Amino acid sequence: VKIAVDAMGGDRAPDEVVDGAALAVKESGVSVVLVGDAALVKKRLEAVGPPPGLETVHCTQVAGMDEAPVEVLRRKKDASIRVAFDLIKDGRADAVVSAGNSGATLAAAAVVLGRMPGVDRPGIAGVLPTLRGPVVVMDMGANIQCRPGHLFQFGVMAEAFAQETLKIDRPRISLLSIGEESGKGTDVVKKAHDLFKASPMNFIGNLEGRDVFKGDADVIICDGFVGNVVLKLSEGLVEALTVMLKEELTADPLSRLGATLSRKAYQRFRKKTDYAEYGGAPLLGVNGVGLISHGASSAAAIKNAILRAADMVQTGLPARLEARLKRFVSFKNAV
Amino acid sequence: VKIAVDAMGGDRAPDEVVDGAALAVKESGVSVVLVGDAALVKKRLEAVGPPPGLETVHCTQVAGMDEAPVEVLRRKKDASIRVAFDLIKDGRADAVVSAGNSGATLAAAAVVLGRMPGVDRPGIAGVLPTLRGPVVVMDMGANIQCRPGHLFQFGVMAEAFAQETLKIDRPRISLLSIGEESGKGTDVVKKAHDLFKASPMNFIGNLEGRDVFKGDADVIICDGFVGNVVLKLSEGLVEALTVMLKEELTADPLSRLGATLSRKAYQRFRKKTDYAEYGGAPLLGVNGVGLISHGASSAAAIKNAILRAADMVQTGLPARLEARLKRFVSFKNAV
Repeated sequence: VKIAVDAMGGDRAPDEVVDGAALAVKESGVSVVLVGDAALVKKRLEAVGPPPGLETVHCTQVAGMDEAPVEVLRRKKDASIRVAFDLIKDGRADAVVSAGNSGATLAAAAVVLGRMPGVDRPGIAGVLPTLRGPVVVMDMGANIQCRPGHLFQFGVMAEAFAQETLKIDRPRISLLSIGEESGKGTDVVKKAHDLFKASPMNFIGNLEGRDVFKGDADVIICDGFVGNVVLKLSEGLVEALTVMLKEELTADPLSRLGATLSRKAYQRFRKKTDYAEYGGAPLLGVNGVGLISHGASSAAAIKNAILRAADMVQTGLPARLEARLKRFVSFKNAV
Repeated sequence: VKIAVDAMGGDRAPDEVVDGAALAVKESGVSVVLVGDAALVKKRLEAVGPPPGLETVHCTQVAGMDEAPVEVLRRKKDASIRVAFDLIKDGRADAVVSAGNSGATLAAAAVVLGRMPGVDRPGIAGVLPTLRGPVVVMDMGANIQCRPGHLFQFGVMAEAFAQETLKIDRPRISLLSIGEESGKGTDVVKKAHDLFKASPMNFIGNLEGRDVFKGDADVIICDGFVGNVVLKLSEGLVEALTVMLKEELTADPLSRLGATLSRKAYQRFRKKTDYAEYGGAPLLGVNGVGLISHGASSAAAIKNAILRAADMVQTGLPARLEARLKRFVSFKNAV
């Protein structure tokens, strides 16, 4: 399995990305193609010692973190993220991992690899930890303004993804809203509720923000604006609470001593709440495997994303997803 | 100062509400009118011992937690939340506190007390703790679908509220979106961005979910759908993290011992992150003082909300808010 990694994508690129790629190659049998400015990549590789199984493909452009996806597609044919997907198309790689501009990554995937039959809007699925196992949240930020049928399509894709990766036969699908009753939410959410209810899915109704982390659902559907807020707010709140707790634990000598003794517990807690452990958010609805890693990804996070992408290739996720989507031949009509 | 309290509102009404009202009266000079089923209220009052300064007004109806606000207004003229605002109108109370249906509370306030001049959509402001002081978030769930001008009006009201209660002369106003650049977000958010930018406010631009708890802004503006998700997600995540941390702290003997020694730190931490300490979310844009307390409010939370409402009456918040709103005579045109 060969993974194309966008060496220029992310706040800490290329160094952390290169390091993560090197780690992945060293720790597993996976091959990696680093796509980016060859001189910068080479410089870093020399510092860490390049392992066999790691090659570089040079390109001259980079998609800015805040650049509009359409602009990247139109003006930067040689952007690292685009070139990475070209490698899949040319049969030179099996999957792409990028910590860069997520909108541009999804757009490049859709244009280069194409959308799966019946899918109008590919999206980004995120896996979040809850009190009772992981939950798939879609869309995580690619589709800002959605029609009811788009939300329903996210549900179909996320259900298939949950079936494949969480190994759940009938995932509990829910719709993020501001009350549990079907009448709660925006017009779009209310209409999407009706579509889910009329489907053969295991739709458990609306879910409130309060219940996201309880683990009552396996799949949570929302538009990309709300999904992005959910994802980033959660991350920011975990960070803020960690700081607040640390302040209190160091505010008096006895608490400080206690915290030292509980060190192992804090380490386990941090590991559980660290995005790096979750290794990236998959693109769903495109013909191939793409994983978006956190913009601030460390080498460890990049490594995890590469291993997870390799796993998705080996289990044949896209083909299996497509087969499951065929159950909903008519779901395109719902848009 | 006399506060009308909706004795029937909230998941733990009437008992916790009655207890909270009794606590508030006992601990301060404030008078309270409990509005609700007189028999139920009396029964509980006899159990806790009714203090002087606590009276009861009987009514026969209750707004269900999930009832549509228009339905409550149309069909339940004798609902406790409506009768409570009637007391303000009749000069028999100075403010209302309710832990009940927040949409119905706002609707009753708007209909009975009227909207402030220039305000199209009154809303609910929430005060959240951050790493650097409190932040005012508006709207918290009353206005699900908004136009750009509505978001701008929330900004005008929340700015005035922050000036009055946080004692900040030029609050930093931000717009919740999915990227810091002006081009990020829904069409509504992008147009609202332009309105804020053209205003004399201290507008610091878009804020991402990640930065909500950093304390970089004094005011965060969003529609009620997003605001409700933010509020409830934050609450649910704090609960989930507390459970996860507790699990880890009790998983090995050394950590357990450490946690016992750090007990004081955890108590301070819990106090800082407890909604009950923040005493309710004010209604802004109506002619009077109304506070919405958390649906799961304990007696302590109800007490805090009553004391906070009394404080708002004593400082003359509505009149001061209205005076500040006059600065933006033209803001109605922005809708």
